[in-house]
Amino acid sequence: MRSGLLLTLALGCTFLSTSHVVAAGDPGDGSLAARYKADARRIIDAVMAGNDAYNKLETLCIEIGHRLSGSPQLERAVEWAVAAMKKDGQQNVRAERVMVPHWVRGSESATMISPRRESLEMLGLGRSIGTPPEGITAPVVVVKDKEHLARIGKAAAGKIVLFNFPMPPYDPERGAGYGQTVFYRTNGASLAAAQGAVAALVRSVTAKSLHTAHTGAMRYDPEIPKIPTAAVSIEDAETIARMTKRGIEVVVNLKMEAKTLPDAPSANVIGELRGRTHPEEIVVIGGHLDSWDVGHGAHDDGGGCVIAMEAINVLRKLNMIPRRTIRVVLFTNEENGLAGGKAYAADHAGEMKNHVAAIESDSGIFQPRGYSLECENDAYEKVALDQLSDIVRLLSPLGPMDAKLGGSGADIGPMKPEGVVLLGHRVEGSTYFDYHHTAADTIDKIDPVLLSKNVAAIATVAYILADMPDRIGTPPTPDASSH
Amino acid sequence: MRSGLLLTLALGCTFLSTSHVVAAGDPGDGSLAARYKADARRIIDAVMAGNDAYNKLETLCIEIGHRLSGSPQLERAVEWAVAAMKKDGQQNVRAERVMVPHWVRGSESATMISPRRESLEMLGLGRSIGTPPEGITAPVVVVKDKEHLARIGKAAAGKIVLFNFPMPPYDPERGAGYGQTVFYRTNGASLAAAQGAVAALVRSVTAKSLHTAHTGAMRYDPEIPKIPTAAVSIEDAETIARMTKRGIEVVVNLKMEAKTLPDAPSANVIGELRGRTHPEEIVVIGGHLDSWDVGHGAHDDGGGCVIAMEAINVLRKLNMIPRRTIRVVLFTNEENGLAGGKAYAADHAGEMKNHVAAIESDSGIFQPRGYSLECENDAYEKVALDQLSDIVRLLSPLGPMDAKLGGSGADIGPMKPEGVVLLGHRVEGSTYFDYHHTAADTIDKIDPVLLSKNVAAIATVAYILADMPDRIGTPPTPDASSH
Repeated sequence: MRSGLLLTLALGCTFLSTSHVVAAGDPGDGSLAARYKADARRIIDAVMAGNDAYNKLETLCIEIGHRLSGSPQLERAVEWAVAAMKKDGQQNVRAERVMVPHWVRGSESATMISPRRESLEMLGLGRSIGTPPEGITAPVVVVKDKEHLARIGKAAAGKIVLFNFPMPPYDPERGAGYGQTVFYRTNGASLAAAQGAVAALVRSVTAKSLHTAHTGAMRYDPEIPKIPTAAVSIEDAETIARMTKRGIEVVVNLKMEAKTLPDAPSANVIGELRGRTHPEEIVVIGGHLDSWDVGHGAHDDGGGCVIAMEAINVLRKLNMIPRRTIRVVLFTNEENGLAGGKAYAADHAGEMKNHVAAIESDSGIFQPRGYSLECENDAYEKVALDQLSDIVRLLSPLGPMDAKLGGSGADIGPMKPEGVVLLGHRVEGSTYFDYHHTAADTIDKIDPVLLSKNVAAIATVAYILADMPDRIGTPPTPDASSH
Repeated sequence: MRSGLLLTLALGCTFLSTSHVVAAGDPGDGSLAARYKADARRIIDAVMAGNDAYNKLETLCIEIGHRLSGSPQLERAVEWAVAAMKKDGQQNVRAERVMVPHWVRGSESATMISPRRESLEMLGLGRSIGTPPEGITAPVVVVKDKEHLARIGKAAAGKIVLFNFPMPPYDPERGAGYGQTVFYRTNGASLAAAQGAVAALVRSVTAKSLHTAHTGAMRYDPEIPKIPTAAVSIEDAETIARMTKRGIEVVVNLKMEAKTLPDAPSANVIGELRGRTHPEEIVVIGGHLDSWDVGHGAHDDGGGCVIAMEAINVLRKLNMIPRRTIRVVLFTNEENGLAGGKAYAADHAGEMKNHVAAIESDSGIFQPRGYSLECENDAYEKVALDQLSDIVRLLSPLGPMDAKLGGSGADIGPMKPEGVVLLGHRVEGSTYFDYHHTAADTIDKIDPVLLSKNVAAIATVAYILADMPDRIGTPPTPDASSH
């Protein structure tokens, strides 16, 4: 039963009658923006006056560090998050066990040995196999993309293929161009192996580099032999490409101890601000607690975790307890398996109908820009977007915001088939991929004021979603809409 | 004899009478700007239509690579530069032997071993001694600056001192703040050793980092025991500082094979565009051919070398042979000894009076902004600045330019006591120190169009300095100034 519908009928048209006018001018008296204006201001002012998010993030980054699935650090992070939310007085705090892939990097190197000896800045890609102890030594063939590789064909046999596909500079309209570029990180090894290559290198997925390698997950095509694969810095990819263009043969030795161990135990961490009237209805907010094994996962996604933790901490301190429950979920294993997100949806299948909405923050901590929204049901999606547009107006003290249709987050994706309204916490994106999956993803890259703004935004939106009389996305009743 | 003075008298006041009005409005008919307007336009148009500078720089960076004093690569670079200038048809092309310091880095690492194991991004500092083979393992004490170290005093004994002095963000008015920051790279080891420290680490001299270490020269105080010293990335310095601030003891193992070998032979490389009427009078233009042993010295200072080489190449192709000689000097050993600059001034002491001016480019290849000027003689300096202000107007097709008093370049500095007018080739400086002395100083950071603009600027100014009737800086005669 969707109790929100009953509430709607009980509360009448004050809320629903305005759900169609959110795009026009100032909010009417009955809009969500009007209803929650004072609450939003109270939350924002309280967060911006001071909060514990930066201390939480610094504790996670400095005292625990990076936390790859299967690592002892990730398990320390699970214990820390449970303890921190208990200390904050959250309810139903628990770690829900999830088995996760356990890939380990080991020692690794890539060295140009001809025409001259030069150490390459590299990072093996997650899930890659390793090399023999002496490494793989072979000439390098440079290709721009898969069409180029197809033209070269079997000439790549016995070689190390370098995919030198550049990520475009950030574009405010089109974004970062991550999707088209990450294709080679994900699929490069099998594409190269299909032509008989002995290893694959990919230019790091970034538009900016200070001799910086970017790791990330790759995937083997089960029909094709597995070969080791690693990312190299833009500088090294360009050097090798320019050498070969000048007719100079480049020989590289690639050494990787990488291997995959049996799955390891990990956990999703949960803590709640229980709803005052409909605690069984849930708004999920969260990020992922795991990271790659370089840097400290400050932007990706320590920040997403601590803004969710701090959002309910602030609301509890303000004694702002919404009708429904706000549930913080810190997912495990987003980076190389998504086991946490899948397990959450499966473990909570019985209460999925009571999941009103889920918000994920996994794009780093920058100036917040609003929210994206997606919902399996198109009619709900349209209504929900109108309502969200209304709500985000209340974030204007934090800067320009908007709501738009779009992807939300990998960890909450498994809830989409259940009809849950999914929101992505959006931020200014011009520098995220400079740090993404690198040793440079550290807390010195986090602006404390922007961190607070992100706490304020997600706390406000989560509060309203959990407190608004009707569930987000519920279409107006015929009576109400004709009002 | 300063033949320029005779020329001045012969040519009368057409040129000199305007040297006092350069700051006001359009150039008069008799100004340098008026005299050389067509020539400047011809040079700029020819350079921007196409030139060989990028090919030269790519050859240096890609085919030779980095070139630290004493390395075989530096000697290959000397041979390449001689061959390239001969191929371009330059005159008196030669390598003038200079003995240079020969410091070698060897293998090196810095590893945090407590509270957890984490590899630090580090680069040993030039001239540092090494460690024992097992390295130096000690707790780290973090200080912000020398006053902080003085307060700690002997509590630093037996420890590794980390100087965590941050370089300020680039400021368009005040510049990069390099001077105040590099103090700790240069002097940190002896400051720490004076308190009994066993090694010194310094935060890399940069305001921006993607886990990037910056090397550079250091200096031991002869009165104080030598201890090994290295730079670490901003990320690592911040991590250690934040750990210690949280009361966590950080222990680091520093391993460095660094050592100084006997001086090695190297050379300044020289090539000339001989003057048509006063070939004995010389305008020097150049940069330094050596680099640090990381990256490829693209900005520092391959770019400075190739713009000078290409400047006379373009003038020769245009058959624009000025009255005086333009001499390209590619200095050796700027980075860790300045042996090339000192040797040039000493070896050419006999002709120093005929050195009309010297221009060094050693600030990277960015948007050119004009020239700085310094001269031992204040009266000459004032006149020279007025004339230079007049000349740089002709660079306006390349962007806004100006002339101002200021430092010129380390390699040409030894000519200052001889009264030579020294010019620094100035460029927009907001990103230079991101790449400076790092593995990221590679040709992918060079914009070909900006490289051409730098060639055009230095070719134009060198041409005018070498061709203007009187030597730059010559005060107007009383008759002329009362005209």
